[in-house]
Amino acid sequence: MFIAEINVMPLKELLDPQGKAVEHGLANLGFNASKVRIGKRITLEIEASEETDAIAKVEEACKKLLHNPVMEYYEFTVSKV
Amino acid sequence: MFIAEINVMPLKELLDPQGKAVEHGLANLGFNASKVRIGKRITLEIEASEETDAIAKVEEACKKLLHNPVMEYYEFTVSKV
Repeated sequence: MFIAEINVMPLKELLDPQGKAVEHGLANLGFNASKVRIGKRITLEIEASEETDAIAKVEEACKKLLHNPVMEYYEFTVSKV
Repeated sequence: MFIAEINVMPLKELLDPQGKAVEHGLANLGFNASKVRIGKRITLEIEASEETDAIAKVEEACKKLLHNPVMEYYEFTVSKV
């Protein structure tokens, strides 16, 4: 059994309106944060015989379902439990 | 300048309907993932004199704006750039 931690973030070239909104919200509260980006974090457990197999499965899941390549990129880590 | 990476996830005791939907979607594609949880990942840059100061600021931002304590918990890391 492996745990995968996947981050799906808006592409760096694109404006992130949700991030901008949070940036303004933080500014109103007195925090001067910048470059706020908001994406998704997905954690899941997956059965696999070995780590390379788990990585291949998660990679395929990201490509087929979890991220939209037009607007997002993904990165993930896999660890054995 | 510090970079904060914040994960805001649904509380472990709560059902995560979005995670369940993705779990079914993955099952339809032939992936047997389990315990799929979907939350938010927020990255931002913040000015601070030292790391403890940056941590305090991010902590306060999480409490005041970024997470809903009824449904979510948060964790974050801060690193100097």
